[in-house]
Amino acid sequence: MEKAHPLSRTARVLAFDVFGTVVDWCGSIVREMEVLHPQVDGAAFALAWRAGYRPAMARVTSGELGWTLIDELHRMVLDQILPQFGLEALSEEERVHLNRVWHRLEPWPDSVQGLTRLKQQFTICTLSNGNIGLLTQMAKRAGLPWDCILSAEVFRAYKPSPATYLGVAKVFDLAPEQVVLVAAHHDDLAGARACGLQTAYIERPLEFGPAQLKDVSPRPENGLHCSSLVQLAQVLGL
Amino acid sequence: MEKAHPLSRTARVLAFDVFGTVVDWCGSIVREMEVLHPQVDGAAFALAWRAGYRPAMARVTSGELGWTLIDELHRMVLDQILPQFGLEALSEEERVHLNRVWHRLEPWPDSVQGLTRLKQQFTICTLSNGNIGLLTQMAKRAGLPWDCILSAEVFRAYKPSPATYLGVAKVFDLAPEQVVLVAAHHDDLAGARACGLQTAYIERPLEFGPAQLKDVSPRPENGLHCSSLVQLAQVLGL
Repeated sequence: MEKAHPLSRTARVLAFDVFGTVVDWCGSIVREMEVLHPQVDGAAFALAWRAGYRPAMARVTSGELGWTLIDELHRMVLDQILPQFGLEALSEEERVHLNRVWHRLEPWPDSVQGLTRLKQQFTICTLSNGNIGLLTQMAKRAGLPWDCILSAEVFRAYKPSPATYLGVAKVFDLAPEQVVLVAAHHDDLAGARACGLQTAYIERPLEFGPAQLKDVSPRPENGLHCSSLVQLAQVLGL
Repeated sequence: MEKAHPLSRTARVLAFDVFGTVVDWCGSIVREMEVLHPQVDGAAFALAWRAGYRPAMARVTSGELGWTLIDELHRMVLDQILPQFGLEALSEEERVHLNRVWHRLEPWPDSVQGLTRLKQQFTICTLSNGNIGLLTQMAKRAGLPWDCILSAEVFRAYKPSPATYLGVAKVFDLAPEQVVLVAAHHDDLAGARACGLQTAYIERPLEFGPAQLKDVSPRPENGLHCSSLVQLAQVLGL
């Protein structure tokens, strides 16, 4: 058996990005659209919805909008893109149901097993811009065994605000270097590193679907680089 | 089999008070003191510590102190009472360890089974004045299967502030009457009821130890009155 990575001794809390890192937002939306609205290009729809997410958050961080939950931002973007896909006739009830697809996202195949193993030694929590209700219902449905659900909603700030990364350390009364951010996104990891957290990159080449493969090549600034959450558990000796 | 109580159809989220309702703070502290400081009257010590809790919170709600986590309030009270019990010589390290006893509180014998059954149908969360880190470490150690940990820390207000009870409903995008507060304390339940939540009283006659039995007689204003969390699960058809 290989020796565990040194991080296994210093880390106490693993904080996980969720959308793309733990759950497959693109594939989940494509699969729901195939059932609900099979005439629509599900991949294009998923990508358009997700593309509206950062501009919507920017309207909050700029002060144009007050503090807004991601559920509401998702709904604003949904209402914008529906006409582009010929779905402007959707009823309020149908829109509410479709918007909740973000509560029903499915985990990557390794996520539940990886988290369950990591939980044996570490406190595992979310650190997502998703709101608490969304993350809770997602976890309950998908069997994600979080010790604790932390969210932008707790810190009243979205990632990559330092208030979120440092907020995790503060919640658990730890030094930043005792917390590892686990994410499939380099900008998120860079934000965490700037606050003194450790970082673990997870390869999710299919995050944007098979037609738009993501570059998942290693970058030296990340403390760990793993192909899955199961591999992360292995590397940390679990 | 008896018919489930009507609440089982309307309720979506069960929010639990923790200290006294789910875990036995008095007995847990007595048992730790027997090991750490057997010369001290553990029950008197536990009661003195807990008695300092509300006055300390009142200093925050009055504005005398800024927002303060319960871990810090427990520590302030601890430092105050140690001399009364001949423990003024405790080192910083010993004080830190003793203060963390609140992270190590043990559940009542029915709590884990009751919560596990209730979780099958309802979203179960904490609603405690305890801080998130404390509640998370307690749950991890005791096996409390929360779907989500909500705390005064999330809402920046202590119970019985309406911001906490209404905050639970808002987090889950529910009407107040779809949320049930489960607690062993009538003042907490009254605060929830004033906000439109449903209420369930749990008998914990031993909350303050066997020498100071608590009156747990039913009061008509509570929607449910149960002897344990297992009985609550039974009453709700689980």
